[in-house]
Amino acid sequence: MSTVRLTRVVAFSAAHRYHRPEWSAERNREVFGACANEHGHGHRYECAVTVAGTPHPETSMVMDLGAFDRVLQQEISDRLDHRHLNHDVPEFAFGKEVPTVEALAVHIWNRIAPHLPEGVRLEQVRVHEEPHLYAEYDGAE
Amino acid sequence: MSTVRLTRVVAFSAAHRYHRPEWSAERNREVFGACANEHGHGHRYECAVTVAGTPHPETSMVMDLGAFDRVLQQEISDRLDHRHLNHDVPEFAFGKEVPTVEALAVHIWNRIAPHLPEGVRLEQVRVHEEPHLYAEYDGAE
Amino acid sequence: MSTVRLTRVVAFSAAHRYHRPEWSAERNREVFGACANEHGHGHRYECAVTVAGTPHPETSMVMDLGAFDRVLQQEISDRLDHRHLNHDVPEFAFGKEVPTVEALAVHIWNRIAPHLPEGVRLEQVRVHEEPHLYAEYDGAE
Amino acid sequence: MSTVRLTRVVAFSAAHRYHRPEWSAERNREVFGACANEHGHGHRYECAVTVAGTPHPETSMVMDLGAFDRVLQQEISDRLDHRHLNHDVPEFAFGKEVPTVEALAVHIWNRIAPHLPEGVRLEQVRVHEEPHLYAEYDGAE
Amino acid sequence: MSTVRLTRVVAFSAAHRYHRPEWSAERNREVFGACANEHGHGHRYECAVTVAGTPHPETSMVMDLGAFDRVLQQEISDRLDHRHLNHDVPEFAFGKEVPTVEALAVHIWNRIAPHLPEGVRLEQVRVHEEPHLYAEYDGAE
Amino acid sequence: MSTVRLTRVVAFSAAHRYHRPEWSAERNREVFGACANEHGHGHRYECAVTVAGTPHPETSMVMDLGAFDRVLQQEISDRLDHRHLNHDVPEFAFGKEVPTVEALAVHIWNRIAPHLPEGVRLEQVRVHEEPHLYAEYDGAE
Repeated sequence: MSTVRLTRVVAFSAAHRYHRPEWSAERNREVFGACANEHGHGHRYECAVTVAGTPHPETSMVMDLGAFDRVLQQEISDRLDHRHLNHDVPEFAFGKEVPTVEALAVHIWNRIAPHLPEGVRLEQVRVHEEPHLYAEYDGAE
Repeated sequence: MSTVRLTRVVAFSAAHRYHRPEWSAERNREVFGACANEHGHGHRYECAVTVAGTPHPETSMVMDLGAFDRVLQQEISDRLDHRHLNHDVPEFAFGKEVPTVEALAVHIWNRIAPHLPEGVRLEQVRVHEEPHLYAEYDGAE
Repeated sequence: MSTVRLTRVVAFSAAHRYHRPEWSAERNREVFGACANEHGHGHRYECAVTVAGTPHPETSMVMDLGAFDRVLQQEISDRLDHRHLNHDVPEFAFGKEVPTVEALAVHIWNRIAPHLPEGVRLEQVRVHEEPHLYAEYDGAE
Repeated sequence: MSTVRLTRVVAFSAAHRYHRPEWSAERNREVFGACANEHGHGHRYECAVTVAGTPHPETSMVMDLGAFDRVLQQEISDRLDHRHLNHDVPEFAFGKEVPTVEALAVHIWNRIAPHLPEGVRLEQVRVHEEPHLYAEYDGAE
Repeated sequence: MSTVRLTRVVAFSAAHRYHRPEWSAERNREVFGACANEHGHGHRYECAVTVAGTPHPETSMVMDLGAFDRVLQQEISDRLDHRHLNHDVPEFAFGKEVPTVEALAVHIWNRIAPHLPEGVRLEQVRVHEEPHLYAEYDGAE
Repeated sequence: MSTVRLTRVVAFSAAHRYHRPEWSAERNREVFGACANEHGHGHRYECAVTVAGTPHPETSMVMDLGAFDRVLQQEISDRLDHRHLNHDVPEFAFGKEVPTVEALAVHIWNRIAPHLPEGVRLEQVRVHEEPHLYAEYDGAE
């Protein structure tokens, strides 16, 4: 009996802006740089979701891939793709959490975790904001 | 004397929305789909600018790379990176041109062309909206 | 009025075998090498289809992307993805054409061309058999 | 004395089919979808093999790269490249294990592990079936 | 309070040669192969530096990205980019350490570690010598 | 009878330096920047060689791939891989041509052209010095 990790990567296109409304324009600019630009900008995010489990003795699969894809579609694509994170995702509304790649990794972990079947463990969520910048979260406190 | 083409690729992160204000919400949705979402979304664009010329006999260069990069910085990065195309680029304001990848290729061509040194010809502008979708423009009518 | 080229890339996973039944096993092995192995092998093909036209004055699009994707789905994905080219595509049956990347480029051109709307011209089909080997066809005789 | 991990990536092109002969055609179709198609299909697999050890004080190498490449050639390329996994690899014959990406990761681990020199530890085998789907195995039960 | 890992990737272009002056030419050739060629050769290295910490409650950032980039610029780009490792980096002078990808990972770790702010932990340095060969170091002895 | 283009991509790792011995150190630095550093630096070059012809009626191949690969091995890999271009390639010796990516594209064209079989036309040589910079040459004067 082997424990294998399986990773599925999905992409989504979203806009965001870094802005704390309780801060002055100067402080927003100083801390967030061009990410503070008023109308926001955008990225092609790639999100890699890793689960772990024992491959089923008949199918040699850790998890049914169709079921995995439906969770990712519902929790990532349907909610984040072609969206403006600050306007369309309540947790990232101005005054709440700033939609950094770190915050997105934790956010997506929390959305995926409740939907995995018994015996399948969520191992890691990795979110690339661009090819040269990414965050990983594995549930650690 | 050989004519060689030289291509430099730059990336920019921008938000955009497809929306014609003179159309109904229904028609915008029907024609533009998720690209019509109210608050816009974003992409990591990659733009490949190709010039052609005869390599200089002493430097073997078609064009000084530092000068090439300064044109791309000024006409692409400084104007489009970390911007919302509809709000920050007058040509793509709502009611004007829709910021498709086709329109961006022509727009960038028109911005780059006047800034090339004598003897260097602009050959092509290619813009990737995502890895699997891109437009090319070579000045053809 | 500008003429812009627009390219959409789709992938498909297929098996194939190089084998001419009228040749001896030795000659098949000599000409086709490991591609002649009896049970076939497989690739992840990437196919880039390029069309050209004048962006529509209202939408700035060369062609409706949804319509483009439906043609690619019907003529490429539905017919070639998760298939064995020799067994599942009549034109590549043993004794007919060998399913090389060159033959695939011409084959896909011939499948796509009849389905483009008026005013949109098929420019090129590029097929990657692997990242370091690809063929391009532009309708030239 | 530092412990460093070294990873070598190799690719192989193979065909496979998901099919359990003791199941009905309907059940095979229901569980395996298009992967159950009768004649199989194919992929370009990428396999990343990671070893760990202490770099040699004279060569600064964890393992001689030529020796590493010979193991990968013998155990991966020679056995899996340009092959049909169900027909050419006994462990994946119909009725035995289904050649999923999870099963391939464990299979390759078991082939590589006996061939590493003393002082070099096999750390992980990662197999990509396509760019957006991969499995990792590190010997865990 | 979540612990998140953040990775930034930077590239540098450098030349190197594998050569131990206390060895004969024959032994250098036998052990190092083409890497022993007299005048050296070069690579485009990619270096991924991973840090870990708790995202700041106001900025949702593990570390200020500008500060992170300044450390990478100073310790990696300014010292290694457009350099010949054996000639320009004292630790890799002939007779000292051979500039393998394993040695580079440890070297970069040791350069980065002293410059991280309090509360941010260096997790891993991964160095790609080419796309298919890379080393990782996490400080382990 | 269709004319199809076939492209094969090969990589090579090489060092180079931009330096004109008849210029002052100041002028070399001013024109060539960090590329003028005394000991040189390196790149992973990717070279795409495109040929065109009519696929053979029996094999559906423009050119035998083994023969194509032997030409690329002999004219590119054997001469340029793991080499220092200024020291190991006479045409790029100091005082002769500066080994820019433009010069390399022309150089490789001239090496490949005489070795193609009858009926196969050399179409283009594209050389990437890095992912974001490349030159193309098609024999044009």
